[in-house]
Amino acid sequence: MTGTTDRVREAFRLLRETGRPEAWITLRDEQDLLLEAKLVDERTATGEHLPLAGTVFAVKDNIDVAGLPTTAGCPSYAYSPERNATAVARLLDAGALCLGKTNLDQFATGLVGTRSPYGAVRHAFQPDKISGGSSSGSAVAVALGIADFALGTDTAGSGRVPAALHGIFGLKPTLGLIPTTGVVPAARSYDCVTVFGRSLATAQRALRVMTGPDPADPGSRTWPATTRYAAANPARVAVPDAAGLVHLTPEARKAFATTIERLRGTGAEITPVDTAPLLEAAGLLYEGALVAERHAAVGAFLESGPADADPVVADIIRSAGRLPAHALATDLDRLARHRATATALLSPFDALLMPTTTRHPTLAEVAADPVEVNSRLGVYTNFVNLLDLAAVAVPAGAADGSPFGVSIITRAFDDQTALDLAAALTGESIVDVYPDGGTDLAVFGAHLRGRPLNHQLTDLGARYAGTVRTAPEYRMAALPTEPPKPGIVRDTTHGASLTGERWTLSPAALGTFLARLPAPLSLGPIRLDDGSQVTGFHCDPVAAAEGTDITRYGSWTAYLERRT
Amino acid sequence: MTGTTDRVREAFRLLRETGRPEAWITLRDEQDLLLEAKLVDERTATGEHLPLAGTVFAVKDNIDVAGLPTTAGCPSYAYSPERNATAVARLLDAGALCLGKTNLDQFATGLVGTRSPYGAVRHAFQPDKISGGSSSGSAVAVALGIADFALGTDTAGSGRVPAALHGIFGLKPTLGLIPTTGVVPAARSYDCVTVFGRSLATAQRALRVMTGPDPADPGSRTWPATTRYAAANPARVAVPDAAGLVHLTPEARKAFATTIERLRGTGAEITPVDTAPLLEAAGLLYEGALVAERHAAVGAFLESGPADADPVVADIIRSAGRLPAHALATDLDRLARHRATATALLSPFDALLMPTTTRHPTLAEVAADPVEVNSRLGVYTNFVNLLDLAAVAVPAGAADGSPFGVSIITRAFDDQTALDLAAALTGESIVDVYPDGGTDLAVFGAHLRGRPLNHQLTDLGARYAGTVRTAPEYRMAALPTEPPKPGIVRDTTHGASLTGERWTLSPAALGTFLARLPAPLSLGPIRLDDGSQVTGFHCDPVAAAEGTDITRYGSWTAYLERRT
Repeated sequence: MTGTTDRVREAFRLLRETGRPEAWITLRDEQDLLLEAKLVDERTATGEHLPLAGTVFAVKDNIDVAGLPTTAGCPSYAYSPERNATAVARLLDAGALCLGKTNLDQFATGLVGTRSPYGAVRHAFQPDKISGGSSSGSAVAVALGIADFALGTDTAGSGRVPAALHGIFGLKPTLGLIPTTGVVPAARSYDCVTVFGRSLATAQRALRVMTGPDPADPGSRTWPATTRYAAANPARVAVPDAAGLVHLTPEARKAFATTIERLRGTGAEITPVDTAPLLEAAGLLYEGALVAERHAAVGAFLESGPADADPVVADIIRSAGRLPAHALATDLDRLARHRATATALLSPFDALLMPTTTRHPTLAEVAADPVEVNSRLGVYTNFVNLLDLAAVAVPAGAADGSPFGVSIITRAFDDQTALDLAAALTGESIVDVYPDGGTDLAVFGAHLRGRPLNHQLTDLGARYAGTVRTAPEYRMAALPTEPPKPGIVRDTTHGASLTGERWTLSPAALGTFLARLPAPLSLGPIRLDDGSQVTGFHCDPVAAAEGTDITRYGSWTAYLERRT
Repeated sequence: MTGTTDRVREAFRLLRETGRPEAWITLRDEQDLLLEAKLVDERTATGEHLPLAGTVFAVKDNIDVAGLPTTAGCPSYAYSPERNATAVARLLDAGALCLGKTNLDQFATGLVGTRSPYGAVRHAFQPDKISGGSSSGSAVAVALGIADFALGTDTAGSGRVPAALHGIFGLKPTLGLIPTTGVVPAARSYDCVTVFGRSLATAQRALRVMTGPDPADPGSRTWPATTRYAAANPARVAVPDAAGLVHLTPEARKAFATTIERLRGTGAEITPVDTAPLLEAAGLLYEGALVAERHAAVGAFLESGPADADPVVADIIRSAGRLPAHALATDLDRLARHRATATALLSPFDALLMPTTTRHPTLAEVAADPVEVNSRLGVYTNFVNLLDLAAVAVPAGAADGSPFGVSIITRAFDDQTALDLAAALTGESIVDVYPDGGTDLAVFGAHLRGRPLNHQLTDLGARYAGTVRTAPEYRMAALPTEPPKPGIVRDTTHGASLTGERWTLSPAALGTFLARLPAPLSLGPIRLDDGSQVTGFHCDPVAAAEGTDITRYGSWTAYLERRT
């Protein structure tokens, strides 16, 4: 197999043909990559499982790749890391190949992609317009097909705005799920590593590989014991009311309305809400004192007056150095109140659908008014990390001659719900479920999909994970209950194989489900026909004996269908 | 019943006799309280359950009591709250009566009890020595027997240092469990309401009543789905190594060693650890920029130059106004690293036993060197709230002519473990289990106390909650498993009542326990002889039939004892 070698050759061909040199700060040597590609192909040929084999990726140049300089968009700041950032190391371990480092708004401060001494990054397809930033080069590398996916970072929207402007996916996970070890901080409390992809499945696979705790990162977080593995059924999605959409052009509003209808068409319940409290919180990021975090990160360097500092970036960060600590303390308290408000606002919903950004500016417009144009781009993204939310930026048609994008925003750790809704909206398929730590439950009756008690599972965030067949040692009775339920009793002599469903849910959800279980049911190991075991339903045999034996039907569904 | 009336009369008699007027800022009128006492006694006489009926309490004067001024120890700052602080409202609703408001180190800034224009609060029993602070008056009111319990607040140790110096209990719960609505902030991120008590049970009952979410408090937190309801068995307790105890006098070291031995005598496993990382984190509270939170709270008021500002307090808070925001951002990042270190340090243990404070200073010593003497008092307390830990200050004998105290420190939300160890150490009894949200599991065999699989429950933080007897409709078989286990099968015809144990554990722990359960067991509702149901063990009847029927013994324990 030569798949990876071909992929590297194609990447370099596109690099040469597409003519976007400013997207890159450091490119690796094609011959070196071809050698690495050969190794990957040899390893997969021997049967080794490398989940990202065959893919090539780009890395925003504020994330360390061993052997390449890290510039953060500022040549005089550059250093040569000896170790890969944790996120990069995990991708390389999974068989992905790194093409090089991409341009960015200096120190990841900006949403435009123009604030770099390595050149303003032009849009992949409309060279007079901006790429969006700060993860500008990474978005362009993906949009042009050079990279299969690319790493960005996101504090105010840097992993989502360029995705929206390019019509690609931008996955911004819950803060802390991907370690930031080896990432140049922008505002450390609100920074995270993101993934751009043309394919949701590829981007999600990269995200999944990078997720997991890192003792070197104090902000690293693990999936909680209450993680939801799916939205409720139907999914409950909030959308901004009309006042929340005033920042959009009429065409963009139309595109957003179309997206809402498409989501409704997938079965989601749509509810307009007042998003003003969220947009207000966004103001804290640059207008308040939280920006002092940017000074804590690179202020001392910028105070030394480097000649290659971007003037806009340097001004923002140097000004932040004059803010008093008590103002930051006050703003952190305000932020805590905003978080409580957001939690209350989002609590009845699985997700919030928002536009990702506003009108696509030209390079000239940014040059004329660099701060104001930048601010407008972040209206719908700035609040997300501040309020500890997760988001996926999703392509959603076009408006005003540019791609239009929406973001599916969820509470922290509900990342999988955002990915599922992104898939539903675009018709892409979800390959790998993302959160780990779940536990499986086999159900055989009223909890099956479409049956009256299925909501008890979906309300707890349980996720359908396929069908199961028991070992041929169970009998099933139709119990005289309301709603009707089967009772399953082990019987190694007269038993048969029964078909049911496997659902994944969190340990806390399983415990809650068990605590609510009515007699005569119980939960314990069920043997499956493949020799494995799964926790599933059992029935008190005294009660089962009062029902009608329906073992011969093989499943509750078959019994119900044949009976009626 | 006139219990409450008598209690009020006794409180005022002690108030007059003990001669510590400086402990109070506002005292309520005895006649008003006697009227309220009569009402409480009438309500309890009609059978109404008021968990704190018959108790009287004092409130630190930075916590609002409707109708009384809140001064925070500064007359010119005073305001008249229309509403009770949430914590106070919950105590009053539970039948406790508020005697008045107590003196404090101004704006809760200090650990000495001398920083108040209402007078330096003398120690309850050694008037030349300090009471400790900042919750000085509240501690004295409890130590003198005037109040049954009293509210303090605690940021750096204000709810623990005065407890240690007086030989009483000081309960400092996990941040956010008790709402701080209606509390004058000191450093809002690290403030919490605390309880002083002579009796652990009374203090704990007050704590329990005050605990619970409050939508008005963005820092309010609920018990997580992973809450531990008890320590492991045996409890694993870390203690400082010799280097960690250098701040103690030789006598205090001896008292601490004696306490360790007493705790070991209760069955706890003791492990010395290097506590330097914890003590280092403490330095951030006053030496770094976190103190800017105090300026955010009352800095604008103090900048106006009020004549009654305590000079030491005003100097600390005004200086904090000159700190830059980037320094606070840097220190918050340092704090996150310290938290990660503390989490790793404490992860193998249920609790950490520490001295609560250092040598008991005289009023004259504090006057001579107010900042340095204050700092020394907080060496062992300052890190606790910073690192999001819970603590109970426990009386532990005497040293150098004053009471000696220790603190049992746990991770956030392991508050019950700290209370249990405090009870074990002092021989007091635990009346009410504190965390809610738990779920119950009935066990009948190898999971019973002292049996081979009991650790599966205690490792998950499950708590023994008494014995249960089933309805007379179960049979028990001795299964041919290793270790030996019973199998319980429902049998309404030939069944009997079986005796087992009830354990309380979190939903996540129950889910984890279920997911690990081996065949032929399952978990589901068991009917009890009082008509209630509880989740408990069932056995696959096919497997039970392979065992020996032992129903006649009535319990696994009886079966094992009679058989051997």
